[in-house]
Amino acid sequence: MEKTYNEQLNFDFYGELLSDRQKTALEYYYNDDCTISEIAELMNMTRQGAYDVCKRGKKQMAEFEEKLGLVKRFEKNRHLLSDIVSELERTIQKDEIKKLPEIQNELKVISSKINVLSDEF
Amino acid sequence: MEKTYNEQLNFDFYGELLSDRQKTALEYYYNDDCTISEIAELMNMTRQGAYDVCKRGKKQMAEFEEKLGLVKRFEKNRHLLSDIVSELERTIQKDEIKKLPEIQNELKVISSKINVLSDEF
Repeated sequence: MEKTYNEQLNFDFYGELLSDRQKTALEYYYNDDCTISEIAELMNMTRQGAYDVCKRGKKQMAEFEEKLGLVKRFEKNRHLLSDIVSELERTIQKDEIKKLPEIQNELKVISSKINVLSDEF
Repeated sequence: MEKTYNEQLNFDFYGELLSDRQKTALEYYYNDDCTISEIAELMNMTRQGAYDVCKRGKKQMAEFEEKLGLVKRFEKNRHLLSDIVSELERTIQKDEIKKLPEIQNELKVISSKINVLSDEF
């Protein structure tokens, strides 16, 4: 079963809307990196049963994202922020700014705050 | 019926997960600023019926937010970004930066990009 970055994000965003069984199975799958066979054993199910639970959970999360688009929105903002940080870093490294260590420091603090924020998305 | 900013945000985020009837009623309510009586007339329902549809829709969205917390997350990031813009603006207005019009301009562009982004949340 394919495991993509986007699916992982879907789980981070929408996991709480799944049934308890789907949530437990996909927690093993995404957070503990278990295989389907391991999930089957942990949850006392057949391999086919564990596969189906995971597959239905993934499908439901894809439908949530299809309707709400919040993962896409966060990701877009995260990339835009990362571009802004690069732009700010270029300015910070200019000779005129290097000659103003106090100002340079203020800008570095701002840049790192944006960076931390972009990781929170 | 109370209409809060947070409820409006809940509708922006989670509206697409509601039933068609709830969505239609709450679109009139939030986006067109209709009263319950107007919604009842528009949707050919009793006033009590329209009230119930809106109330159930709101309750469901509150439950989505309780589980996912995405409105809270977006709002928090939006405020942090707005603080960062204020900080950057203070640096931009310093005399040392004013003496460097090209650098000042670069920083103004960056500041306005962050501002635009914080409105997108």
